Amino acid sequence: MAEKISFNTQIFSRVRLATESDVSHLHKLMYQMAKYHNYTKVFNATKASITTNLFKSDNPCPPFYSVTAFILEVSSDSFPQNTLKNPIFDPILRTVNLVSPILDSDLELFRTNNNISSILSEVDNKPLSSDNNVFVAGYVLFYPCYSGYFEKPGFFIENMFVRECYRKCGFGKMLFSAVASQAIKLGFTKVDWLTVGWNENAIDFYLGMGAYIMQDVKRFRLSGDGLDAFATNDQDGGDKI
Amino acid sequence: MAEKISFNTQIFSRVRLATESDVSHLHKLMYQMAKYHNYTKVFNATKASITTNLFKSDNPCPPFYSVTAFILEVSSDSFPQNTLKNPIFDPILRTVNLVSPILDSDLELFRTNNNISSILSEVDNKPLSSDNNVFVAGYVLFYPCYSGYFEKPGFFIENMFVRECYRKCGFGKMLFSAVASQAIKLGFTKVDWLTVGWNENAIDFYLGMGAYIMQDVKRFRLSGDGLDAFATNDQDGGDKI
Repeated sequence: MAEKISFNTQIFSRVRLATESDVSHLHKLMYQMAKYHNYTKVFNATKASITTNLFKSDNPCPPFYSVTAFILEVSSDSFPQNTLKNPIFDPILRTVNLVSPILDSDLELFRTNNNISSILSEVDNKPLSSDNNVFVAGYVLFYPCYSGYFEKPGFFIENMFVRECYRKCGFGKMLFSAVASQAIKLGFTKVDWLTVGWNENAIDFYLGMGAYIMQDVKRFRLSGDGLDAFATNDQDGGDKI
Repeated sequence: MAEKISFNTQIFSRVRLATESDVSHLHKLMYQMAKYHNYTKVFNATKASITTNLFKSDNPCPPFYSVTAFILEVSSDSFPQNTLKNPIFDPILRTVNLVSPILDSDLELFRTNNNISSILSEVDNKPLSSDNNVFVAGYVLFYPCYSGYFEKPGFFIENMFVRECYRKCGFGKMLFSAVASQAIKLGFTKVDWLTVGWNENAIDFYLGMGAYIMQDVKRFRLSGDGLDAFATNDQDGGDKI
């Protein structure tokens, strides 16, 4: 599969709500993102943990009320435009004209599971021509955030990732837009996220979209032994603190 | 009510899960916190919005799976020690010996609603001696946060506030501990929060508890017109991005 061109002049793309059938692809994407950020040493997400956090009864909240993932898919065939309206989230479609061809040497690894295609064709009530020709190219993971100061919640984007060969095509903005549009639909008034300071490309990208950096803010974390210390504190009773 | 001493040598305190009956007190506390942080100009939380976000079907998630509040209460009478176990969250009790007396000139404003006391006495199955002598002194607002890198979620603490006259008694740590202990109980592996850089007291307090500051991290926000722009983007279709 190595040297052939995957996409030549045009690429069709879709952002849709992730389902349990995407877990295996999500896990690969999350690991790639951890690698990009040099976090593989602490990476311990598993397919089982992704399933639990996103889709299982351990987290009984519907999409958008707790952690939620959108999947970015690409295809050389167009996605059906007249998909029935999804009550939770209507997939977003975009056609991108390529400046240069895209070679995806991991194409087969990221083929969308038949499972999904059959679900989609049920929704659409007709077979999809693109059934076997849809590939996962990225994802965004986000959850609602709340403040005591504001009437409305916001979304916090925790991860956003587009596979390397699909960058510079506007897919990052497409994923981000999907979250921002959904925020507006729900009446939410902000979208927040963190960026590491060395990632100048990302910082320029976000500033160019109209976002601003919150000044003079420090992010704290308590984890590991520091957090475990509070397990015993709870047993102490009395007037220790 | 001005000049009398509210608490002399000892103060009994309790951290419990907030209920809908606390909304009025929560709203006052949130406004006080906004005032402390000079955010009153943007403060637009209302009793209705707090009710919706924390307790209504607009957010169908149970406590700890979405935004959750703990209430800090104080009393000059002891809280019952042998309260029946609460399946969601066992109240945490502490007795604090005071170095100097506390004068709470807003005491009456923050009297716990009878509503709550009667709920508690039902749980306890006997009348509470402290029914009419319990006052709200602070709160913490937090929600679960997720990452694609990690197996387990964490908690993000959005607001933590102790009314001025009750500071320096360890109540901040008590509220924080309640969240940290709950994180451990649920198998969560971190607690995160933000602090403004000018708040040196808070920074010292958190570092002293074993927390660390995440270096080289920028917090972005998209809101207002910048966010609204994405509502129209969504209608564009085609290959604009």
